[in-house]
Amino acid sequence: MDNLDKELLETIADLHGIPEGSFNIRKNGQLLARNSTADIEIVPKTDKDGIDIIVKAGVTNRSVHIPVLLTVGDFHDTVYNDFYIGEGADVTIVAGCGIHNDSACASEHDGIHTFYLSENSKVRYVEKHYASGNGEGKKVFDPVTYIFLKEGAEFVMESTQLGGVTYTDRKTVATVGKKARLVVKEKLLTDGEEVAKTSFRVLLKGRESSADIVSRSVAKGNSSQFFKSDMVGKNACFGHVECDGILLGGARIVSTPKIDAVSPEASLVHEAAVGKIAGEQLLKLMSLGLSEQEAEDMIIQGFLN
Amino acid sequence: MDNLDKELLETIADLHGIPEGSFNIRKNGQLLARNSTADIEIVPKTDKDGIDIIVKAGVTNRSVHIPVLLTVGDFHDTVYNDFYIGEGADVTIVAGCGIHNDSACASEHDGIHTFYLSENSKVRYVEKHYASGNGEGKKVFDPVTYIFLKEGAEFVMESTQLGGVTYTDRKTVATVGKKARLVVKEKLLTDGEEVAKTSFRVLLKGRESSADIVSRSVAKGNSSQFFKSDMVGKNACFGHVECDGILLGGARIVSTPKIDAVSPEASLVHEAAVGKIAGEQLLKLMSLGLSEQEAEDMIIQGFLN
Repeated sequence: MDNLDKELLETIADLHGIPEGSFNIRKNGQLLARNSTADIEIVPKTDKDGIDIIVKAGVTNRSVHIPVLLTVGDFHDTVYNDFYIGEGADVTIVAGCGIHNDSACASEHDGIHTFYLSENSKVRYVEKHYASGNGEGKKVFDPVTYIFLKEGAEFVMESTQLGGVTYTDRKTVATVGKKARLVVKEKLLTDGEEVAKTSFRVLLKGRESSADIVSRSVAKGNSSQFFKSDMVGKNACFGHVECDGILLGGARIVSTPKIDAVSPEASLVHEAAVGKIAGEQLLKLMSLGLSEQEAEDMIIQGFLN
Repeated sequence: MDNLDKELLETIADLHGIPEGSFNIRKNGQLLARNSTADIEIVPKTDKDGIDIIVKAGVTNRSVHIPVLLTVGDFHDTVYNDFYIGEGADVTIVAGCGIHNDSACASEHDGIHTFYLSENSKVRYVEKHYASGNGEGKKVFDPVTYIFLKEGAEFVMESTQLGGVTYTDRKTVATVGKKARLVVKEKLLTDGEEVAKTSFRVLLKGRESSADIVSRSVAKGNSSQFFKSDMVGKNACFGHVECDGILLGGARIVSTPKIDAVSPEASLVHEAAVGKIAGEQLLKLMSLGLSEQEAEDMIIQGFLN
């Protein structure tokens, strides 16, 4: 690993070098390092690029890191990772991707992830996307996340994209079983000519299932963002979708959340607010001695954190 | 007018007989009665079914009634009404439609209404749809409302559908100019196998334009409702969309509000909540001596009023 790799790893996975426990580090389509443990096994797929991550039943307080690095242009990396979480397990999965592209050609990473959570298991899934580089080449992420939650399972997804990504089209599809719970915390910052699309389809299938999706985004420059969600209540369930966006410069945010109460026992709520920073907020901070730019940055940081 | 006509008129337009001032009463595709005044002129169209309603500039505290009655089956009535509201005028327009269909064939009324509001004019537009009858014949309304608001104009639309309508597909399209304001209060109650679709497309085009759309609906039996809105902010503007629905029996409500902040000066908000009546609310009323049915009815009435 060179300095660039280390920098990317730190940004996307909070890693200062090789992590402990189970991990799989992928760079430019190749394996850089891997470690399997008795608790969390990592098995490479034989039919396509990707790995199976198998968490044994009852394993708790463990984490697995599977970061991906892309440091070349003219490269399209697609990887299929499947996660099998055993009954009663409780683990953290860190799966960011960093692209550094100095070339004139596109660099793209598409992680197609499928999570199978057994009864009463819990996963905290952390995914950061980040891109840098001075070339003209696009930096693209088109991730797809499928989530299947069995009775009593809980999946908490924290997805963050805070800069440099030219284009992203993120799809998340979840089926939530009896008494299972899906929580999504999305943070998105776009600038320049960047375009970010994000869509959720959540099927609240089981009795007493629930979902809570909160997306917070900031669009600067001429960037544009398209948020879409489709939440279907098929049983006695509770679903909440919230989409808050701050607009700056010449940016644009489009939000289209759909709720579909198929069952009369379903309770579904959504709310969205898109607008610029309130003038009073800026003035308050500026009266404390901050410049307009500093005040704006502080409000954005507070909003995203 | 027979007793049935009078009953329908009262239900849809709060009229106990022929109104004062300007009016146009249409029954089964024919003119029943009309009166034009100097302030509000009603001119029949020559190229198609419908009338032009011309409100002179500066006319205030006046109302015009244009109810429509349909008392036969196997009849599809389409009518094109255009409203020209002069500068500074402030009027109330009452335009309900009542269908009574005892036959086995469909009865349908489609009012295609276009409103042109001059600078600083105001319109309160009241539209009630109601249907009755014991036949198998469907009772259908597919109204389309176009609204063009010039600088400083205000349009308040109160649309109500409280029973008996087999199918409705309502479309409302508005372009809101500088400092102009659109307010919509929609109330919808469906039961049995009824289907109601309602969609809004609002373009907040002018600086300091605003729109406030509140839809409250109750779906009983096996009925289904589809609410859609698309609000586009093209300037410094404020838009709010709210959609609250109560589900009973085997009913279904789908809500898809879209907000599109094309301008970074736009501030757009939407909120929606769909679910059944809260158990505590029912219990509270029942503890006061009401039956479950009475408590439910009281909550629905309160919600829709």
